[in-house]
Amino acid sequence: MPLSYEDARELDAADPLAGFRGQFAIGDDPVAYLDGNSLGRPPRSTILRLRQVVEQQWATGLIREWSEGWAELPIRVGDLLGATVLGAAPGQTVVADSTSVNLFKLLHAAAGLRADRSEMVVADADFPTDRYLVDAVAAGRGLTVRRLPPHPRGGVALADLGDLLSDSTAVVVLSQVDYRSGYLADLTSITAAVHAAGAVVVWDLCHSAGVVPISLDVHGADFAVGCTYKYLNAGPGAPAYLYVAQRHLDAVEQPVPGWFGAADVFAMAGGHIPAADARQMLSGTPNVLGIVAVEEGLKLIQQAGVDSIRAKGVGLTEMVVRLVDDWLVPLGATLVSPRDASVRGSHVTVAVPRAREVTDALIERGIVPDFRNPDMIRLGLSPLTTSYCEAWTGLDALRELLG
Amino acid sequence: MPLSYEDARELDAADPLAGFRGQFAIGDDPVAYLDGNSLGRPPRSTILRLRQVVEQQWATGLIREWSEGWAELPIRVGDLLGATVLGAAPGQTVVADSTSVNLFKLLHAAAGLRADRSEMVVADADFPTDRYLVDAVAAGRGLTVRRLPPHPRGGVALADLGDLLSDSTAVVVLSQVDYRSGYLADLTSITAAVHAAGAVVVWDLCHSAGVVPISLDVHGADFAVGCTYKYLNAGPGAPAYLYVAQRHLDAVEQPVPGWFGAADVFAMAGGHIPAADARQMLSGTPNVLGIVAVEEGLKLIQQAGVDSIRAKGVGLTEMVVRLVDDWLVPLGATLVSPRDASVRGSHVTVAVPRAREVTDALIERGIVPDFRNPDMIRLGLSPLTTSYCEAWTGLDALRELLG
Repeated sequence: MPLSYEDARELDAADPLAGFRGQFAIGDDPVAYLDGNSLGRPPRSTILRLRQVVEQQWATGLIREWSEGWAELPIRVGDLLGATVLGAAPGQTVVADSTSVNLFKLLHAAAGLRADRSEMVVADADFPTDRYLVDAVAAGRGLTVRRLPPHPRGGVALADLGDLLSDSTAVVVLSQVDYRSGYLADLTSITAAVHAAGAVVVWDLCHSAGVVPISLDVHGADFAVGCTYKYLNAGPGAPAYLYVAQRHLDAVEQPVPGWFGAADVFAMAGGHIPAADARQMLSGTPNVLGIVAVEEGLKLIQQAGVDSIRAKGVGLTEMVVRLVDDWLVPLGATLVSPRDASVRGSHVTVAVPRAREVTDALIERGIVPDFRNPDMIRLGLSPLTTSYCEAWTGLDALRELLG
Repeated sequence: MPLSYEDARELDAADPLAGFRGQFAIGDDPVAYLDGNSLGRPPRSTILRLRQVVEQQWATGLIREWSEGWAELPIRVGDLLGATVLGAAPGQTVVADSTSVNLFKLLHAAAGLRADRSEMVVADADFPTDRYLVDAVAAGRGLTVRRLPPHPRGGVALADLGDLLSDSTAVVVLSQVDYRSGYLADLTSITAAVHAAGAVVVWDLCHSAGVVPISLDVHGADFAVGCTYKYLNAGPGAPAYLYVAQRHLDAVEQPVPGWFGAADVFAMAGGHIPAADARQMLSGTPNVLGIVAVEEGLKLIQQAGVDSIRAKGVGLTEMVVRLVDDWLVPLGATLVSPRDASVRGSHVTVAVPRAREVTDALIERGIVPDFRNPDMIRLGLSPLTTSYCEAWTGLDALRELLG
């Protein structure tokens, strides 16, 4: 029997994280927001914190705030991110720049660690920035790019990768959760396989951080990047982060050395003497408003715990997959995302006819998903803010439109 | 006769820009803020705009705002910056990233235009980030760095540069206003000289933009970067900007290609197809909060006009130089900044004994200047917010402490 709205209400009633919705600024519009994996909703605490930082710290403290805490924000909030979301001990993570810029830095840093090798590996279906940057950095360093062929499912399994790894491989770049299909790669086994080939791996965690348990230190990860405006709810264009494993910190060279990455920022020394910890990866002046928003988002994730968030994420995606099967497949839709929750992140993608027009019609009704070329509708389920009823309502509208 | 507080009051009474102070959030603390050239004060309109963007656009519009204006912010506000401050026609300026990251991009882009040449020129006394990046980019591209020797005055005059320019010169990097001395370089004649040598120049406008009239297009500038948190009053760590002259847009390659620099951001095409205009220099997702703050700051500059701001900047620095001469030189201070207003930006630097301790003592009294290694106190005079009385009060406190 298809799942009813009443069933969704019961799932909400039993949801241990239901109370977190009240900690976000959520009104009547949109009716159903299924795009928290593109832009998360604002926590109420972030709204207050931004007021405080702008209207008190900036207005009154002014430049004095740099020595009262602002200068430490990239590493302090990086450490909180490491502890809460990444499974990273202090000193390895900084919040700064955009994912693109951080990925650029890490690709160079990683390639420099394997300067005797000639190949970079990237998935042909990965997010554009990742592919563009691999092409550009490889070209700049005279490396060959090996491409994982597009997979119907999207995302990368160990079996797909095996053939491409060799003693020529310098760096492998992979997304833990695929931005279209939501396929969840096995970070543990892939990292081990890359290491067995003598290469290093840069993980893009944009679509996994905050909704999937991650243990970078335990699994011996080398490098990672990700954004903060999705499941970390830090706001539009908030700064990204990067992780460099402790064991690599002495050896890496970062290509964009700026004053905030110096061991002593205000010494303004003759030559660049990099900081010993992950601060060495910083370049320019930290984006204060953005980083405090990251901090507030992380506090909520810390309260909820990533394991609980993951459990609800599985519950939400399971419900949506079931509704896709029951309602949408008979109307011509195809499930793009994995059916097995253990290899699925926190979004569910369906291919439907006229996906662009259908997306526009949904948005007209206050149902906000994401369109992805060429024929996909991506339904983001952000466990701290998405209710089962909200997801049900979104799918119900999609059913009507396809009907 | 030394200038009295009453004289300063009269100067304020006659100041046509005096009313702009009321458009900023200015309270009783600090007593005198002489560091608007490190971090400008918040405009009241920025406070309201940030509330609106966070509490309405982000909270309610959510992802829909990207297609309702957010995606255009880097170029739209870049064009406003070009029109208001840089003397740049549309399509050449974007607001994005940090000064460091932008400088990195432009150094590569510039060097790529002169790939047959072997040298980069930088001033040995320039801001650390500029020097670090020139060293790093030159090393990465196999170029030699030629250094303008430290000048007692700081800053670069055409005469200093002449010997270093040759047919080996690829790129010259210079600050228009020196971050320590406040020396104002002659952008026009230096640009012409660099061009005469067949090289290109990257101007760092951090300490000049908004307080000195600039006409990049008219003077045939090639590239420029700068920050927005100083005289543009966009807040701590707000995004920086870069300018690429129209004639270079087709030929430059930027080293950090990301999705927001693509001709069609959401096509997510196989290879990177750069946008035709300065958008091609973008990499990651734009920092929305930061860019709207830049826009609000620029609106005030547009209202006041850079010529009027410059006139008041000259008035303020003239008064401060006179007070330094009258009060501080007899107490052991030295004027580091040029005495001639035509080659001076909008800050005045003095060398004093025990400068670090004196700065701390000033801050204790609510007088906020900036300390710069090894013995300098930098007095920033931001014409839209600094009153003559405020500057007088700051100098008076300095006199007491040195006495």
